[in-house]
Amino acid sequence: MFTIAQRREQFAALFTRPLPADVDSSATTLGGRPALELRRAVPGTTGEDVLLYLHGGGFVVGSARATAHVTAALLRHLDGRAVSIDYRLAPEHPFPAAPDDCLAAYRELLDSGADPRRLVVAGDSAGAALVVVTLIRARDAGLPMPAAAVLFSPAVDLTLSGASMRSKDGVDPFFAPADLGWLFDQYAAGSDRSAPELSPLFADLTGLPPLLIQVGSSELLLDDAVRLAGRAGADEVAVTLEVAPRQPHVFQLDDGSAEAAAALERAGRFLAARLGGERDGS
Amino acid sequence: MFTIAQRREQFAALFTRPLPADVDSSATTLGGRPALELRRAVPGTTGEDVLLYLHGGGFVVGSARATAHVTAALLRHLDGRAVSIDYRLAPEHPFPAAPDDCLAAYRELLDSGADPRRLVVAGDSAGAALVVVTLIRARDAGLPMPAAAVLFSPAVDLTLSGASMRSKDGVDPFFAPADLGWLFDQYAAGSDRSAPELSPLFADLTGLPPLLIQVGSSELLLDDAVRLAGRAGADEVAVTLEVAPRQPHVFQLDDGSAEAAAALERAGRFLAARLGGERDGS
Repeated sequence: MFTIAQRREQFAALFTRPLPADVDSSATTLGGRPALELRRAVPGTTGEDVLLYLHGGGFVVGSARATAHVTAALLRHLDGRAVSIDYRLAPEHPFPAAPDDCLAAYRELLDSGADPRRLVVAGDSAGAALVVVTLIRARDAGLPMPAAAVLFSPAVDLTLSGASMRSKDGVDPFFAPADLGWLFDQYAAGSDRSAPELSPLFADLTGLPPLLIQVGSSELLLDDAVRLAGRAGADEVAVTLEVAPRQPHVFQLDDGSAEAAAALERAGRFLAARLGGERDGS
Repeated sequence: MFTIAQRREQFAALFTRPLPADVDSSATTLGGRPALELRRAVPGTTGEDVLLYLHGGGFVVGSARATAHVTAALLRHLDGRAVSIDYRLAPEHPFPAAPDDCLAAYRELLDSGADPRRLVVAGDSAGAALVVVTLIRARDAGLPMPAAAVLFSPAVDLTLSGASMRSKDGVDPFFAPADLGWLFDQYAAGSDRSAPELSPLFADLTGLPPLLIQVGSSELLLDDAVRLAGRAGADEVAVTLEVAPRQPHVFQLDDGSAEAAAALERAGRFLAARLGGERDGS
């Protein structure tokens, strides 16, 4: 059994990649939390696009830096900056610390003048779930919605009730159901794991912006993505679901793979096409 | 109560549109059935692409001509021809007449020299279900798969077991569940409606080509599409699902709507990007 600190070190060692040479990164704060800001130099452009990225790691591990290469890949399709926040992690800071931090970050972006029509949100795994929860909370607070959101392998059902939790057990190279259960226990810390703010699969998703959901077929979390698409669609949200065969959880983070590059390309185009509220894209 | 003949006339009157001026149509036969062949004149191109289109109409009504404008819209993204067949209809010809005709058509295309890497298949509603059944039968017969398939509002669960059969009852502007039940009764004619060849939602979809599934959120059949995406994904098929908010069943057939045009544009691009087995598209 590894300690929490060891798990965090392992996650960082496994995923962290160098950033592209044309991307500048700087430490900042957003919503009261440390954050990583990425910018690309694009001569002659206005640069008003903003991407808010929420990293994954089961609410327990992960960091803005460990997935910064994914954030940078999405930023390549935008004209502006990306901000990825280090929201508080469990078990030191269980629910609702992370969603509180994420909503505070979203609100600060708006308060500091970000145009919601040029604002997009993305996240992976637990971070993708936090994207959905943040959108719901923002909607309920009367805040404007961003132009679009991208969800990589969203972990939106902390009760582990999806059929793929059984059918992909042994197929998923990263997780057994008990691994996910342990992570979600740290985060829920006794809260009802079926509550919509912990498992946004069970939330009313009415009013959310266009969503792109990407998932691998070799995931315990496959059915989280499928059911979220069904739930969002039933609630009149424009949703696109892409299932990538034989790909594992958050395969977009593997910057050596053609599948990751193609998926990030599609995700970046999806966001770019919806900026400004005027284009209808592929 | 309308007669079968009246239903067919009404369907044709409701959906049939003029064809674009740059599309030539001609009567032909394929798989022993009457068919409509569409061609575009594209100077200086090789023209080897083939689209097989299977029209909808609940297995009881509809025709190649009534949805030819949709076939033509997809053909715009290809370099070649489209063939849409008039498969036999129920109640005069119940299951398995239609799937037999569709497989015969697919087989004849291959036998006559169509390159499966440049062959794509599409259909709407019952026709989209027949696409899935035809792919399954072709796979089981050892025939090569086409490059891709597009499914508009597929009717793949003749048992009407989807949650949207209840949640969208009264929302769907076209159908009550009993309407679908009547149509499917004509087609099944006493066969087990849960059998995979009638309800391909319950089939093993392993080995099928990349699928794009489009559905409206205002459909009784919404969950057919969502569950088919989940089933295909679980079976390692590359699948994309798009849910269009507040759109009705086979909204792609309404050639006055911006949503139809955008959906057909995405569908055409999806097919084109997968032709030749070499491009990875949007």
